[in-house]
Amino acid sequence: MAPHTLPQRFYTSEDVFQAEIDRFFFSRWVCVGRDEQVAKAGDFFLAEVAGESLIVTRDVAGALRAHYNVCRHRGTRMCAEQSGAFKDGRIRCPYHAWTYALDGALVVAPHMEPDFVRSDYPLHSVAVESWHGHVFVNLSKTPALLDLSLLAFDAWNMGELRMRKRISYDVRANWKLIVANYNECLHCPVLHPALNRLTDYMGADNAPPSTDWIGGTMGFKAGVETMSTDGKRRRAYLPGLSQTQRQQVVYYAILPNLLLSLHPDYMMTHTLWPRAVDHTEVVCELHFHPDETGPIDDAVEFWDLTNREDWGISEQSQQGISSRAYTPGPYSKREELLHAFDKIVESGA
Amino acid sequence: MAPHTLPQRFYTSEDVFQAEIDRFFFSRWVCVGRDEQVAKAGDFFLAEVAGESLIVTRDVAGALRAHYNVCRHRGTRMCAEQSGAFKDGRIRCPYHAWTYALDGALVVAPHMEPDFVRSDYPLHSVAVESWHGHVFVNLSKTPALLDLSLLAFDAWNMGELRMRKRISYDVRANWKLIVANYNECLHCPVLHPALNRLTDYMGADNAPPSTDWIGGTMGFKAGVETMSTDGKRRRAYLPGLSQTQRQQVVYYAILPNLLLSLHPDYMMTHTLWPRAVDHTEVVCELHFHPDETGPIDDAVEFWDLTNREDWGISEQSQQGISSRAYTPGPYSKREELLHAFDKIVESGA
Amino acid sequence: MAPHTLPQRFYTSEDVFQAEIDRFFFSRWVCVGRDEQVAKAGDFFLAEVAGESLIVTRDVAGALRAHYNVCRHRGTRMCAEQSGAFKDGRIRCPYHAWTYALDGALVVAPHMEPDFVRSDYPLHSVAVESWHGHVFVNLSKTPALLDLSLLAFDAWNMGELRMRKRISYDVRANWKLIVANYNECLHCPVLHPALNRLTDYMGADNAPPSTDWIGGTMGFKAGVETMSTDGKRRRAYLPGLSQTQRQQVVYYAILPNLLLSLHPDYMMTHTLWPRAVDHTEVVCELHFHPDETGPIDDAVEFWDLTNREDWGISEQSQQGISSRAYTPGPYSKREELLHAFDKIVESGA
Repeated sequence: MAPHTLPQRFYTSEDVFQAEIDRFFFSRWVCVGRDEQVAKAGDFFLAEVAGESLIVTRDVAGALRAHYNVCRHRGTRMCAEQSGAFKDGRIRCPYHAWTYALDGALVVAPHMEPDFVRSDYPLHSVAVESWHGHVFVNLSKTPALLDLSLLAFDAWNMGELRMRKRISYDVRANWKLIVANYNECLHCPVLHPALNRLTDYMGADNAPPSTDWIGGTMGFKAGVETMSTDGKRRRAYLPGLSQTQRQQVVYYAILPNLLLSLHPDYMMTHTLWPRAVDHTEVVCELHFHPDETGPIDDAVEFWDLTNREDWGISEQSQQGISSRAYTPGPYSKREELLHAFDKIVESGA
Repeated sequence: MAPHTLPQRFYTSEDVFQAEIDRFFFSRWVCVGRDEQVAKAGDFFLAEVAGESLIVTRDVAGALRAHYNVCRHRGTRMCAEQSGAFKDGRIRCPYHAWTYALDGALVVAPHMEPDFVRSDYPLHSVAVESWHGHVFVNLSKTPALLDLSLLAFDAWNMGELRMRKRISYDVRANWKLIVANYNECLHCPVLHPALNRLTDYMGADNAPPSTDWIGGTMGFKAGVETMSTDGKRRRAYLPGLSQTQRQQVVYYAILPNLLLSLHPDYMMTHTLWPRAVDHTEVVCELHFHPDETGPIDDAVEFWDLTNREDWGISEQSQQGISSRAYTPGPYSKREELLHAFDKIVESGA
Repeated sequence: MAPHTLPQRFYTSEDVFQAEIDRFFFSRWVCVGRDEQVAKAGDFFLAEVAGESLIVTRDVAGALRAHYNVCRHRGTRMCAEQSGAFKDGRIRCPYHAWTYALDGALVVAPHMEPDFVRSDYPLHSVAVESWHGHVFVNLSKTPALLDLSLLAFDAWNMGELRMRKRISYDVRANWKLIVANYNECLHCPVLHPALNRLTDYMGADNAPPSTDWIGGTMGFKAGVETMSTDGKRRRAYLPGLSQTQRQQVVYYAILPNLLLSLHPDYMMTHTLWPRAVDHTEVVCELHFHPDETGPIDDAVEFWDLTNREDWGISEQSQQGISSRAYTPGPYSKREELLHAFDKIVESGA
């Protein structure tokens, strides 16, 4: 018998949602941004991981740092700005001026008694690592190593690319429906007329899934060179790509929250931010080689259209699955990555 | 001792509300619209019964059909438009093109394996019937017959009437407070100065209540011919009415959700859509004889004013009943239909 | 070891919040307004105490009265207007015209049966008292006496003052964070540059706290005469103040909800209205001697600015304390009133 979709509770139960947040977002490496957002010491940006506000910054030694945005004095959220640079390399609470170094050490605590020991009150910090320019954090107290070495994406030189467009989408669907939507193109001829002119949905080649990622490659139709409004390529191939890599899109869902889409001439990322069991914020970014400074409308408009088609149908899926009438339905072989993902979700791996 | 109003929990408890939704909206016949909305094969409209989206349509044999708006493949809500006509008589899911006949049979399921049996995956359907042009559905797995034959309303020829005005109201009150408000006119002299000019609230004649409906008749004051801004009648009497029927309004609450008000020259319906324990959407429609094509402002404006007065006081009732200080209060004899309704609600009948 | 702030649950748990509402808002005297709002018999205003709408009025004998805004017939909330005067000294329900005297006695109940006893259905009333012009209610069935006689504020003649400005603020923070913010000025040099130009935060003098209030006095910097945009005083000292009282601000939190700030030339009050565990409405009023009819912008603008600074940081505190990373932090000696308040909260006193 064909494998079937997951039971309803995986898409509607608050309890299942919280358990998934714990397992996937508090215990795994979560992609929160890019190295270039904290290029210099004292630069920072805020990331919100499952309701937790984190300060991601770079210390004076050049190391990435991530701290909970919570003062150790009265618990105040210290930074309200989404990004910026800390003045004088100090993180200062705006309530009573407790002040921390970039590495989280408490350096000033006004009016405390003489027996107060500042080293007892550093910021609460979390693990942070960079992989090819992508910044990941891990909120676990005992984080595993970040190991994506099996993903052989060196040719794209992702660390060199620069973000030129970011669009944030508010999607009324469970985060897993967005992962599922990303991992099959059986829906492309029905839902995506523009995309379907460029790629052959029968030509997708799924890689063997792991517990940390699922994905594969998809080739272009004849005469098409990249994903753009008309299939034409308006900039140089990314340097270092082989002939094969120039003729396909590589798409991987790096669990839980990074959808990485490598095109011949640019990189697209989606990061997923579950806000509720039926609500996910999706941030889509387009990254280009630093030498490419011309217009990027061809890619921006193509993907904005295609993204909106995907979010719309994901929302309709959320609505239908929430019905009393919903029962798990059968997958075809072209949806094998979804079944692999479902097994990861079900197993607690 | 006088009978008293219901305890607070019937108006404020989420648990009681869900139990009522189960008993009244998932187990009884619920009015969802009119035959004329699905005049031809393939016409459809969506109804939302207690959070469930249903597709109401007419099949090629002319029979009414009602299906859950849930694709059997991945659970997608298929129709997003509120009404329309299915192209080629096919219900097609916009995600992966699973396609159903109007009777719910699955006819196309792309890329499934050879051993896939389409007849295993028809749409989930529910019972649907028509009574004098009113379309009712019943979501129970073992629905009782729809039997309103004791309501002798043939003279109004309701099936011939055509809807010309629909107004939807968002009311922050429990659905039963709207039923209660509809079933007594003791409040009319206080709350409805316009209506009170037309009818004598002491002249209402309640019919013996059943478990399926409560209602009665109310006569006009001298010189008044119908419910309109000035009590004047601007169109012919509905054909077939007796002299008595021309001099009164017949008003029945057909439980749980249809308030049916038969006037000498038009029909008004309210359908009630509980959205939460303290929130009900009310859809008011005015239906006229097809020969009447002139202005209908006299009726529309009169009832919009009167409706708003009723929703306002129903909302104030909801607020007061939600107080810790609320205790059941005494009914007068003029509120006997409310007590009958309360007993239906309490008994679980 | 230094005393520490309260555990997270006191700021985030719905259960703790409800228990505090019961203990502080349903069992203590809550300030709801001023005598001048019900100057004459039949004048009324509505107060909302923890979701309960109360009618505060003055009866024909001149006594304050407070009733639940709930008709004894069908439970309707009778008054929708926030303030006004009852016509003919009668409180009349707009639904079926049940009518009450100002003392709550039911005087008209149309169409009830002959055996109906009106005296069985008076309005539900609550205790109400006035202290120096401040009106307090107590919703307990066995209210303690209102006794604030230890607060020796006679010199300010608060009962004579007249409200000239009211601003309502919607603050996304637990009510206790606003009490805490009010009771220390350690944050003043960091958060309030304008205020800090006028007062010396090191010059605050805390009074020994009781279970009913916490507070103290704070002196001005040299050359400053009151709290205003420039520290200048634009009106006469309140009559009766001593030389000492002319050179300080007296600030007391009268628990649970009145923050009383006595300036040399005016009185400021804040009343706190918890709406949810993380949401408080704060009403700020400025009261002046009746002889003072000139502009009051100097005080209004100064406090609006300072208030907004306080609400903003209170909201950031709420956000930070809600983090998984929050742990109680250490108080300095300058935050001793907060620790006293925390002990009242923790002890159930």
